[in-house]
Amino acid sequence: MANKVYNFSAGPSVLPEQALKEASAACIDFENSGISILSMSHRSKPIENMFAQTEQYLRELMGIPEDYDIVFLGGGCSLLFCMLPMNFLDQNATADYALTGVWANKAYKEAKQFGNALAACDTKSETYSRIDKNLKLSDNATYLHVTANNTIYGTEWHNFPKPKSGFLMADVSSDFLARKINVSDFGVVYGGAQKNISCAGVTVTIIKKGLLGKVNRTIPTMLNFQTHIDAANMFNTPPVFAVYVMNRTLKWLKDFGGVDAIEKVNRSKAALLYSALDNSKVFVGTAAKEDRSIMNVPFVFNKDVVAADKADDLAKEFLEFAKARGLQQLKGHRSVGGFRASIYNAMPVEGVQALVDCLGDFEKKVLG
Amino acid sequence: MANKVYNFSAGPSVLPEQALKEASAACIDFENSGISILSMSHRSKPIENMFAQTEQYLRELMGIPEDYDIVFLGGGCSLLFCMLPMNFLDQNATADYALTGVWANKAYKEAKQFGNALAACDTKSETYSRIDKNLKLSDNATYLHVTANNTIYGTEWHNFPKPKSGFLMADVSSDFLARKINVSDFGVVYGGAQKNISCAGVTVTIIKKGLLGKVNRTIPTMLNFQTHIDAANMFNTPPVFAVYVMNRTLKWLKDFGGVDAIEKVNRSKAALLYSALDNSKVFVGTAAKEDRSIMNVPFVFNKDVVAADKADDLAKEFLEFAKARGLQQLKGHRSVGGFRASIYNAMPVEGVQALVDCLGDFEKKVLG
Ligand SMILES: Cc1ncc(COP(=O)(O)O)c(C=O)c1O
Ligand SMILES: Cc1ncc(COP(=O)(O)O)c(C=O)c1O
Ligand SMILES: [Mg+2]
Ligand SMILES: [Mg+2]
Ligand SMILES: [Mg+2]
Ligand SMILES: [Mg+2]
Repeated sequence: MANKVYNFSAGPSVLPEQALKEASAACIDFENSGISILSMSHRSKPIENMFAQTEQYLRELMGIPEDYDIVFLGGGCSLLFCMLPMNFLDQNATADYALTGVWANKAYKEAKQFGNALAACDTKSETYSRIDKNLKLSDNATYLHVTANNTIYGTEWHNFPKPKSGFLMADVSSDFLARKINVSDFGVVYGGAQKNISCAGVTVTIIKKGLLGKVNRTIPTMLNFQTHIDAANMFNTPPVFAVYVMNRTLKWLKDFGGVDAIEKVNRSKAALLYSALDNSKVFVGTAAKEDRSIMNVPFVFNKDVVAADKADDLAKEFLEFAKARGLQQLKGHRSVGGFRASIYNAMPVEGVQALVDCLGDFEKKVLG
Repeated sequence: MANKVYNFSAGPSVLPEQALKEASAACIDFENSGISILSMSHRSKPIENMFAQTEQYLRELMGIPEDYDIVFLGGGCSLLFCMLPMNFLDQNATADYALTGVWANKAYKEAKQFGNALAACDTKSETYSRIDKNLKLSDNATYLHVTANNTIYGTEWHNFPKPKSGFLMADVSSDFLARKINVSDFGVVYGGAQKNISCAGVTVTIIKKGLLGKVNRTIPTMLNFQTHIDAANMFNTPPVFAVYVMNRTLKWLKDFGGVDAIEKVNRSKAALLYSALDNSKVFVGTAAKEDRSIMNVPFVFNKDVVAADKADDLAKEFLEFAKARGLQQLKGHRSVGGFRASIYNAMPVEGVQALVDCLGDFEKKVLG
């Protein structure tokens, strides 16, 4: 391949090169043990230490207080969508869900099975292109659920809402450690790791102590967060390698200067790209400006410039044009169409600059 | 390290060197895409193809008929312990569980939450050192559950029992593709991959078509096997890397000559080790001869030779003695004590020979 590849995939997605190299090496020999990390017993000292260190990195980087537990689980974030209400929402209790995108809706759908889940807002009719901050909140909700960053629609909660009662629960899958959040403002913070903090195969759930154990139902052992807290994430065989990739990614972030440092870079990468879109005659961002995500940037052709019947062919042309420069995975999600650039922590400024240049050059080509 | 390392871990465990090398390389660049497999969208063509190929390898190697579906899931085999009764066992229906070890008991415990789970046998009082083939079977059971190979106690079902009614369900975690089984004899075959077929992070469930969808309960989306069958294992982000390690391990097994070829080697490895134990004055196997596993070989000191009050110190000494020769992870499970050698598919004959030599040399040292 002639060009350096920049991978704008929404997830699994770009990871730090250093972490990839360390993961690759550990597949052959983990910490000079002579044994691959893929073959190491999860109950061996080196792996137990690696888990403890990963948790420590997370605590430091996110500023997770002592009175929060951290659970690493396989199964994907979608599994947490049912586990969370199963563990926290009693059959007659109420939870408010802010419906700001597909993932919020999927979480909401699972919660309805376990209790009285209510929509606090719903911008579906606007293709979730903005976040409705005017929430209808229940008087005695157990929790309020938000999707911190809406991966598909490219919107994010810049300021998190305050629950009227109960605690705040946030799915941070697509902005895990991308910006500072105050963990103490939340009862539960959770997400899949496969965007900002690891490869696919592991999720992280951060739970304030004292919130579990209050529902009146029998929870299968593996679906009970308490099982994993009591066993220090070693109740059964955990996804060791995905946790190691997280460990190396967090180490990279620590060396980078932590969340403050990466947030600054993330904001400048996002500003660079949004400004290019705002100045472009051919491309236009789809998300409401005030809710723009710094991680996922969906954009489409400007309808005034590209006629509807030409858009599909031109979209293919643009994706080829970008791919020839090493810019990959820019196709938009089917529910928004067009294009999406995911510019997670590990996407270097150079990648965003290359995309901005590509947008400009394609515009010249189109406008002639 | 002076010696080549042989890793006798019960799981995660030894994998083919070739598969480890390929996994390591893919962490940097997957199939010349310029992108790490850890960063590749699960919905990209190369990953979809890799999943299809993995399924195809499994079908070929195990002889899985067309009318069986294959589900790849994260979460571990322990998660399947609750998912299986949730999906197959109605609240008023009965399932028979043959209690032949810790894992069978854990499966049984979860099933009790979902229906009428009954113990078909229970050799707990004999520390599960043998399999009771004299099963008490219900007249109208939905299924009979067996653990094909009891990882901890080193026993295996050489001939699977026939259910009186319903179908046979088997946990093959610790002998996946180690020996030929006739999949048509089972309704469900399942297991964690982290012993014989991959690293930790993925499970495989093989389900005969027509058995699902018969229970009268609402199943959360992610816990419903049908969800994953309908979405060809791409309902949500699957554990891509663990599936790839499986792909490479299965490819190695195919090149090796398939299950027939590996079974032959496995039997000769097991015979070599058991014969050494039987001829040893110092060591003795703990499992009943007629039920001996070809995968997990637990053994202890002969009580007539090693006095009880000397056993602990001598055990430490033996583990150090073995470790100095590169023979690792030989400590027994706490419920059996002593030692355990797991000699899975990827353990070469040379590793077993090295262990046999080590047992002999330690014996000489002890007997003086
Ligand atoms: C915000 C958000 N939540 C949840 C999910 C689902 O994660 P998983 O595929 O691990 O189930 C995604 C996946 O993209 C996401 O972006
Ligand atoms: C036979 C058997 N079943 C189930 C399990 C549990 O698997 P997991 O740790 O993936 O939950 C094990 C683990 O060793 C096992 O040996
Ligand atoms: Mg979304
Ligand atoms: Mg514009
Ligand atoms: Mg067992
Ligand atoms: Mg003997």
